[in-house]
Amino acid sequence: MDIGGSKTEAVALDPAGRVVATTRLHTTGGTEGVLSTAVAAIDALARNTNRSVGDFAAVGIGIPGQIDREAGVVRHAYNIGIDHLPLAAQLAERTGLAITLDNDVTAAAIGAAHLMELSGTLAYLNLGTGLSAGLVVNGVPLRGAHGVTGEIGHLPVDPLGRPCPCGQRGCLETVASGSALKTFWPAGGDHPGRVLLGAVDAGDPDATAAFENLVRGAASCVRLLVLAMDPHTVVIGGGLRLLGPRLIDGIRATLEGWAAESPFLAELELSGRVQVLASDSPAAAVGAALD
Amino acid sequence: MDIGGSKTEAVALDPAGRVVATTRLHTTGGTEGVLSTAVAAIDALARNTNRSVGDFAAVGIGIPGQIDREAGVVRHAYNIGIDHLPLAAQLAERTGLAITLDNDVTAAAIGAAHLMELSGTLAYLNLGTGLSAGLVVNGVPLRGAHGVTGEIGHLPVDPLGRPCPCGQRGCLETVASGSALKTFWPAGGDHPGRVLLGAVDAGDPDATAAFENLVRGAASCVRLLVLAMDPHTVVIGGGLRLLGPRLIDGIRATLEGWAAESPFLAELELSGRVQVLASDSPAAAVGAALD
Repeated sequence: MDIGGSKTEAVALDPAGRVVATTRLHTTGGTEGVLSTAVAAIDALARNTNRSVGDFAAVGIGIPGQIDREAGVVRHAYNIGIDHLPLAAQLAERTGLAITLDNDVTAAAIGAAHLMELSGTLAYLNLGTGLSAGLVVNGVPLRGAHGVTGEIGHLPVDPLGRPCPCGQRGCLETVASGSALKTFWPAGGDHPGRVLLGAVDAGDPDATAAFENLVRGAASCVRLLVLAMDPHTVVIGGGLRLLGPRLIDGIRATLEGWAAESPFLAELELSGRVQVLASDSPAAAVGAALD
Repeated sequence: MDIGGSKTEAVALDPAGRVVATTRLHTTGGTEGVLSTAVAAIDALARNTNRSVGDFAAVGIGIPGQIDREAGVVRHAYNIGIDHLPLAAQLAERTGLAITLDNDVTAAAIGAAHLMELSGTLAYLNLGTGLSAGLVVNGVPLRGAHGVTGEIGHLPVDPLGRPCPCGQRGCLETVASGSALKTFWPAGGDHPGRVLLGAVDAGDPDATAAFENLVRGAASCVRLLVLAMDPHTVVIGGGLRLLGPRLIDGIRATLEGWAAESPFLAELELSGRVQVLASDSPAAAVGAALD
């Protein structure tokens, strides 16, 4: 199950890891809202598979915020109205099932590796409201020491860049994220990604600057992930990937432009490593279930 | 064995991974020089352990340059005078032993994890002539797709920074490396690290700027490694670590200064993750042997 700010997506996997049922619900925020949304999703999957809830072996949940996997606790998941919730224990109590939690981006990375049949090292770049990455080595996520693996959004890349809410300046997230689009192009409203390309085509200078920053910033993320981790594949996911070929082709063209100026980068074949998560892919839900 | 630009260090390990003999030789450059240096090191270890060369189970070699482990070939190791050398096959022919090669920084990361008894994820930051990192997860190095894991020296962090030989501008290696010291402080000669602190204390403005850039750049590397990989420990190695407490304390103080301005960074406990490789540690030789 993937519990996101606006929707919750859940899949039932058979023992071979194949998706046998899918459901998608509006996420209700807050403790009671999240719990009842999760219960409703599990009930719907039981109905869709002609089984009872007790037939499921376990439930894996991908969710934003800071996740303590051992304790089964979610913290600071503000976009779903949760500051602190022992989600695993409370959902286990309501359903009788074993519940495990994971960071939604890590879950999406695991799911992308599985659904796209990618072996070796995969870096998953999540271009969403925020910016972060997940890392999977031969199907196994790299979790790190403090649960901050892949928090590349808060790496400064320009001493003269914009202040970031994290307290630093010129972080990657200040140029390549949904929140960056809002800053550079306030006229785009709460969901600027949905109307950005129309405004670019209409010649809006702020929208154009926001889009160019996004493309260059996302290309910087790909370069960073390749130099730090040398992944076989960089998969671009997150809501902003729905900007489609103009975003992805822009990222590839930027990487190729850099390669043309740097023999070192040219040898790395940056552009050739980039793939895109399919627009309807339930990667995070699948990854959470596999986890 | 660790074949470096000026010296070659070799250790004999017992089956439990304990160092039972050590030798250190001047490295002679070029194909014949490197081969005869390696043979001499193996002979010395055999004598020191009262064994014959044929008693060694295998030889692992850490060496700079681009390493093709499967083919046993070293390329572009210019500081030891090698452009292309099938070192594994040629040394096997001379010694009758099985030879494996690894990148020297990766070998040092493996050896540091072993000698310092570090479990979990280790990022090894090599502050040498160049700048790069090695990554080890529970004793196993992360190798990546194209053998460029940890090439963080060529990540640009300042659009207005100095041109880098790689073709980009403002790369981390242009501020935090031995080659950067030479650029900022040409008066320091060929081995600026050895005389840098004396010049700083004497008030040399170029030496001071070079040292401050080194400290800030190295701190940036620690932040980068933590945000990308979330390692339990960042071990600082490479020749510049011999600058000692003033370098390491400077890095820690810089990280603590950033944490004071960013609650996000403060939670990551960057400074507390930093450790230093002991000045006489044969980490790369040990790591190559374990590999």
